[in-house]
Amino acid sequence: MQKTLDFYFDFISPYAYIGSTQIDALAARHGRTATWRPVLIGVTIMKVMGMKPLTETPLKSDYLRHDGARMAKIYGVPFNYHGLKGINSVAACRAFLWLKERDAELAQRFARRIFARLWVDGRDITPAEEVVKEAAALGADGEALAEAIATPEVKQALNVAVDHAIANGVFGVPYFIADGEPIWGTDRLWMLEHWLKHGSWDGAGAAVLGHSSG
Amino acid sequence: MQKTLDFYFDFISPYAYIGSTQIDALAARHGRTATWRPVLIGVTIMKVMGMKPLTETPLKSDYLRHDGARMAKIYGVPFNYHGLKGINSVAACRAFLWLKERDAELAQRFARRIFARLWVDGRDITPAEEVVKEAAALGADGEALAEAIATPEVKQALNVAVDHAIANGVFGVPYFIADGEPIWGTDRLWMLEHWLKHGSWDGAGAAVLGHSSG
Repeated sequence: MQKTLDFYFDFISPYAYIGSTQIDALAARHGRTATWRPVLIGVTIMKVMGMKPLTETPLKSDYLRHDGARMAKIYGVPFNYHGLKGINSVAACRAFLWLKERDAELAQRFARRIFARLWVDGRDITPAEEVVKEAAALGADGEALAEAIATPEVKQALNVAVDHAIANGVFGVPYFIADGEPIWGTDRLWMLEHWLKHGSWDGAGAAVLGHSSG
Repeated sequence: MQKTLDFYFDFISPYAYIGSTQIDALAARHGRTATWRPVLIGVTIMKVMGMKPLTETPLKSDYLRHDGARMAKIYGVPFNYHGLKGINSVAACRAFLWLKERDAELAQRFARRIFARLWVDGRDITPAEEVVKEAAALGADGEALAEAIATPEVKQALNVAVDHAIANGVFGVPYFIADGEPIWGTDRLWMLEHWLKHGSWDGAGAAVLGHSSG
């Protein structure tokens, strides 16, 4: 099987943000490069799965609030939780796809900037003009980008990306697919690391549990 | 804060089964004893959270099917997946609570037997008479148990256990609460181990990711 590593993300997920801070170094440790794939997880969750957003699910929403901050601490990254009311990532995801076609490295820096804007600075990422400003500040052609993300072609590109993700079974983010092996969640990076290192599951549990630590 | 370790489980969860094979040894490595607490997770999920069971959720159900077998392999335990149609754990949970009041060690062996019956042997655990037979085979008083699990007192004990779990935020199984710290999932046993060992989250991510493995 071809060695591939896909990283599905949505800017509105705190877990995808935390995963985004780890994935490239993790991939590089095993000679891989992750392919960043934006999705609109709300579309998947609500329309395909018939579920409510986590933030509106009793019990789980409290856990999420505690767990986001905890996960950020576990991986040693800055983080400020917020409730996401009225926030969507449509413009940011469209911009990412357009940038990626032109300059993959710039697109990646843009994605990191958008993640940080939402999950560190606590600022909205919904307005297209703010998204364009962030890209322009990194060196992108703001005028061309502003025009592009309003075109049917770029809108369609995001629809295709979401359909592609659903077809591959992506139901949450971050979602990693390594050599066809699906791994959901920032809490499972240990599994991804084990798979990239060994290409099998043998010994994966013992490797992270302290069987020899007394 | 008092050092406590609660292990919430439901026999119908493949992840709770896998967690049940690890929790006692994990706790013992840190001088702890886990308190096993049965819940009816269907009640929590469907009534409190307004969600569908995982097995009926598109995309997630496929992942679950693949992941259950994978997790069993990761932790090196026997496992046979099945679809759980028409299966419930009400009688088994009631029996566990009644046994625990009388003989905690026997109750634990009974729980392991019920988990194995469902997730290794692939046999139904719903009928009260089958549940009673399993307990009797381990040395329990079958007649007294059969009578007990039909009484309002034992039914009420299980209701209280479920309410207690919901009040403590339990929304899935296995669910661990260590010293007030809530940890959901068999994929997070590494977090539980880190917490029991260090009592903090510092360095938890680096400990399970191969930062030094090249």
